[in-house]
Amino acid sequence: MSDRTELSDFGEFKLIDHLTQNIQHVQESTTKGVGDDAAVIDRGDHFEVVTTDMLVEGIHFDMSYTPLKHLGYKSIAVNVSDVCAMNATPTHVTVSIAISNRFSVEALEEVYEGMLLACKAYGVDLVGGDTTSSLSGLVINVTAIGSVAKEAITYRSGAKENDLICVSGDLGAAYIGLQILEREKQIWKENPDIQPDLEGHDYVLERFLKPEARLDIIKTLKENSIVPTSMIDVSDGLGSEILHICKHSNCGAKVYEEKLPIDATVANQSAAFKLEPSVCAMNGGEDYELLFTIKQEDFEKVNTLPEIHVIGHIAEPIEKAALVYPRGEEIFIKAQGWSHFGK
Amino acid sequence: MSDRTELSDFGEFKLIDHLTQNIQHVQESTTKGVGDDAAVIDRGDHFEVVTTDMLVEGIHFDMSYTPLKHLGYKSIAVNVSDVCAMNATPTHVTVSIAISNRFSVEALEEVYEGMLLACKAYGVDLVGGDTTSSLSGLVINVTAIGSVAKEAITYRSGAKENDLICVSGDLGAAYIGLQILEREKQIWKENPDIQPDLEGHDYVLERFLKPEARLDIIKTLKENSIVPTSMIDVSDGLGSEILHICKHSNCGAKVYEEKLPIDATVANQSAAFKLEPSVCAMNGGEDYELLFTIKQEDFEKVNTLPEIHVIGHIAEPIEKAALVYPRGEEIFIKAQGWSHFGK
Repeated sequence: MSDRTELSDFGEFKLIDHLTQNIQHVQESTTKGVGDDAAVIDRGDHFEVVTTDMLVEGIHFDMSYTPLKHLGYKSIAVNVSDVCAMNATPTHVTVSIAISNRFSVEALEEVYEGMLLACKAYGVDLVGGDTTSSLSGLVINVTAIGSVAKEAITYRSGAKENDLICVSGDLGAAYIGLQILEREKQIWKENPDIQPDLEGHDYVLERFLKPEARLDIIKTLKENSIVPTSMIDVSDGLGSEILHICKHSNCGAKVYEEKLPIDATVANQSAAFKLEPSVCAMNGGEDYELLFTIKQEDFEKVNTLPEIHVIGHIAEPIEKAALVYPRGEEIFIKAQGWSHFGK
Repeated sequence: MSDRTELSDFGEFKLIDHLTQNIQHVQESTTKGVGDDAAVIDRGDHFEVVTTDMLVEGIHFDMSYTPLKHLGYKSIAVNVSDVCAMNATPTHVTVSIAISNRFSVEALEEVYEGMLLACKAYGVDLVGGDTTSSLSGLVINVTAIGSVAKEAITYRSGAKENDLICVSGDLGAAYIGLQILEREKQIWKENPDIQPDLEGHDYVLERFLKPEARLDIIKTLKENSIVPTSMIDVSDGLGSEILHICKHSNCGAKVYEEKLPIDATVANQSAAFKLEPSVCAMNGGEDYELLFTIKQEDFEKVNTLPEIHVIGHIAEPIEKAALVYPRGEEIFIKAQGWSHFGK
């Protein structure tokens, strides 16, 4: 080929923007297409949201340390998380699996067991799928459908100046879990007689291997009559997600380093990897917490709720997105999340 | 592992039955789950249908003779075909693509170009997707959503004794197209100086490489107030699809060999491969025509419509599914469609 542009020259987000720039819609019901956590379809009395996510062996998961049941669970959870990010309740999923002959029927049963466990946990029906073989490796694609009242839909684009930035749960644990698994894998590769030492790391390992979608947070917000002004789930890292909100909402943001919710085990373990805990929180990814903004008037309501942390506020566009350290020093947030197309 | 069952011991359909046997639904709106061409969700005034299909390099397509634009087109068309098989009109699709670094951005653009061309042809909006890298090969997953009036939904299970069996278009062409491509690939592998001889085979090649979903047939049926009693699309071969109808409708079937619609080019070319044309039609697969049954009283209406052929009738369960030859000889139909998990 005379003109060849490498995928790695683009990166995931630029590539998607590039490929989808010429899309035109003809269906009146299409309310939001590509560019948020899920598409939005107008169903008259409510909005339907649709999202899809593909997990590829060797890219998104490493079979040497990923239990198949957890993998099945995670494949559903990450899609449910995208539905939640629209402030919607998930209702249905379809599942496609490509699997090579090196896997047994029993292995596939474990994947399904995990998927059905997640469906039960989130109250979702598995209604369809495709099972096929692959020449190498395992690929799982899940499409999730959800439902939300029209007045409660949240996009990435609704954040306004002075809105408060909130995040659920804690951050960075999945990243530390991954680092521990990778470390033990290297040790095992060098000496297969040494058993992996995973003791005491249950929390961070589970955060990586079997994350939960924060459907409980969506329910809590609804019960307390809080509709976020914008929302996104933390899949690529808090920094990357804040930049998405800023880009789509045309705003800046100030996030306070000391406000970042970080579990004690993450704070302890990050030292072992010579990492700042806040760097794990900002750039780690795969936490599947919800990042959202609320109006200032909702502060009192949010402040009483467990597992929701106010970490900053929306600023003017000119201020860009910045992480503010306790002494007042500010650094601009750059996207350093997962880049599968990276060189 | 002590108990290891090979995927090839099951085959695709048995495997899906096995994996999905314990699925329980909790959503009231779930009308039909796994087991038809698409899932059916009750949306109050209409049914929504959802289907998903994965195309894997080396299994479903061979990059040595598959133009990427055609591949993109086909990935949408085969999902639209499943929506049509429920007598529904497709409205939205989401797309996931895993692609390795051996592909360029330009290659991915071609896939998207083909997908968007198909979306335009079928009046469907591409509303979401996921683009990721893979360690090897190209994987495309499409989920399609459609809509149908409640009284017009067609399942595989509605066929009744004496209903007429109809099929659209013609059969076996995609299979002959594939045989020609495989033959020329072998010749080329043995002598790379010889250019593939594809002249005069436009019809069968296009039928394989760029099939069309028969949305036009769905529109024609609607315009003529015909609601099929059962329907399925011909993806695995007419024989296999007839067996699906018989199994789900608990009936037998008689299909008349001389009634099978076979294009003249297929009849000619099948001799070159020492195949009976009717064998190509029954077992070929990938035609993406619609197989459906109608009440006898609709015969006069159907008889005047172009591209719809009555090929037989539904019989008692005890008669099983049989292909009837002109001299009266009957052979039982066996599934001989694609089996990706075969040894």
